[in-house]
Amino acid sequence: MSLISVGSMAFDAIETPFGKVDKIVGGANVYIAYAASYFTQPVQLVSVVGYDFEQSEMDELKSRGVQLEGVEIVKDEKSFFWSGKYHLDMNSRDTLVTDLNVLANFKPVVPESYQGAEFLMLGNLAPAVQLSVIKQLTTRPKLIVLDTMNFWMDIALEDLKIVLKEVDVLMVNDSEARQLSGDYSLVKAAKKILAMGPKFLVIKKGEHGALLFHENHVFSAPALPLEEVFDPTGAGDTFAGGFIGYLAKTQDISFNNMKRAIIVGSSLASFCVEKFGPNRLKEISKQDIDERISQFVNLANFDIELV
Amino acid sequence: MSLISVGSMAFDAIETPFGKVDKIVGGANVYIAYAASYFTQPVQLVSVVGYDFEQSEMDELKSRGVQLEGVEIVKDEKSFFWSGKYHLDMNSRDTLVTDLNVLANFKPVVPESYQGAEFLMLGNLAPAVQLSVIKQLTTRPKLIVLDTMNFWMDIALEDLKIVLKEVDVLMVNDSEARQLSGDYSLVKAAKKILAMGPKFLVIKKGEHGALLFHENHVFSAPALPLEEVFDPTGAGDTFAGGFIGYLAKTQDISFNNMKRAIIVGSSLASFCVEKFGPNRLKEISKQDIDERISQFVNLANFDIELV
Repeated sequence: MSLISVGSMAFDAIETPFGKVDKIVGGANVYIAYAASYFTQPVQLVSVVGYDFEQSEMDELKSRGVQLEGVEIVKDEKSFFWSGKYHLDMNSRDTLVTDLNVLANFKPVVPESYQGAEFLMLGNLAPAVQLSVIKQLTTRPKLIVLDTMNFWMDIALEDLKIVLKEVDVLMVNDSEARQLSGDYSLVKAAKKILAMGPKFLVIKKGEHGALLFHENHVFSAPALPLEEVFDPTGAGDTFAGGFIGYLAKTQDISFNNMKRAIIVGSSLASFCVEKFGPNRLKEISKQDIDERISQFVNLANFDIELV
Repeated sequence: MSLISVGSMAFDAIETPFGKVDKIVGGANVYIAYAASYFTQPVQLVSVVGYDFEQSEMDELKSRGVQLEGVEIVKDEKSFFWSGKYHLDMNSRDTLVTDLNVLANFKPVVPESYQGAEFLMLGNLAPAVQLSVIKQLTTRPKLIVLDTMNFWMDIALEDLKIVLKEVDVLMVNDSEARQLSGDYSLVKAAKKILAMGPKFLVIKKGEHGALLFHENHVFSAPALPLEEVFDPTGAGDTFAGGFIGYLAKTQDISFNNMKRAIIVGSSLASFCVEKFGPNRLKEISKQDIDERISQFVNLANFDIELV
């Protein structure tokens, strides 16, 4: 079933304790597209790039069933550029450069051919931009998933609260859940956030896994313990892409199936961090993914008789 | 089957964001004993207290099948006293007072009646003291579990390395695993630590759950997301007590059963933090524990067909 994904397509410069790259393709929508395309096609992108975005990347995406009709190409501007440096623990990073370029005036346009999509992924962007995409859809998708970040809570909280009323699933990390709710306890935070609109809340905890909240239910997914995290860039977006891609494939948006979708998203994210940028995501096979999911089953599985 | 547990029995003064107590019974062995006694009896304690330790606490423990023949009472000294204050996030605390008192010259003596115990829990104490208990046993227990902390890595690392060669399971928290191994990655840390002697390593991650490592296997257990952590004091000891108590009850020290034991330990620990000191541990029923374990099953359980 078709899936629309909205988000940045960009170039990144990344420095980690393991090395650095001066220019590699990035942006939320690129990671979402690669991850989701393993499960569902077409993945219909809405984004904007500059004259410098690589045709070879576009071709690679197209070969995986990704549609680019909704990707505007601005002929006289550069693509969005982000540069960051990770600290030794890989849990924190410094942003060195943010050149918005084409993203500064991005007004997404949903092509007519995308209308009728049943799944909508709103990657991290200004909440007003995310809302404008929802407004353009003639039929409300079966499921709308929204990713956001602390930056928008700082500068566009009211806009964020408006778009939150329109979505089904919110994805944030633990510190963002605390900031948005004003509560340190993630259980209390989840209650407050679920009252803001979303029916489901995914709290990403990096190396500690993820939590899914819905009504009075909670699911705790582990992260795969890794020898090394080579580059965490895009892991959250990859998680989102695997999550919604699996839901689109299975057409089941129940709590139980969302648990599975979180395991799938976590599996994809565990590949993403193994190499710079989206490189690892491009080379894995369906069998690799199946094996990784089996590792998650072994990692989390236990059976217990009440004692 | 009988279980020997060695550790402190003490008084604590605790301040948390929710309140304070000036004097409450504490010490690793008290938490271990209450937790383990729900699963196995007798629990045979080795410890030392001063003239001030309360007879009513001793009676309460005895009524739960805890044997105290190995608890030395020093008539002219006070019991070990610890005072601490938790920060708002409950993940860190300041130690305000540590009065060793009777613990300063503690030379544990294992009573003849304890010989033959199949399970040995070495609660957090000086590694040389832990080793002396192992040396006193005429028959090596089926399973020896050791808890320790960063303090001993700072001041008695060589002693710790010696006792590590003698134990089956080591329990530490994530920062201690990093300190002991010198590796930030917990996977790498686990490999190094398993090469130091223990066949199993449990890494406690507080609100993020626990990891169990054995050979090439890993198990990730969630922590129950709680609205409030009232007082974390003793949660790690309670976890240890539930863990080894369940193993002693089931007489099964396989990796699969240790996974269950970690869920049981986590369930007990989730009660411990609900009230000051060991108070909550004294009032729960077997049915409360069963219900809590069911919550863990719901929290972590998922089924997935390979996609």
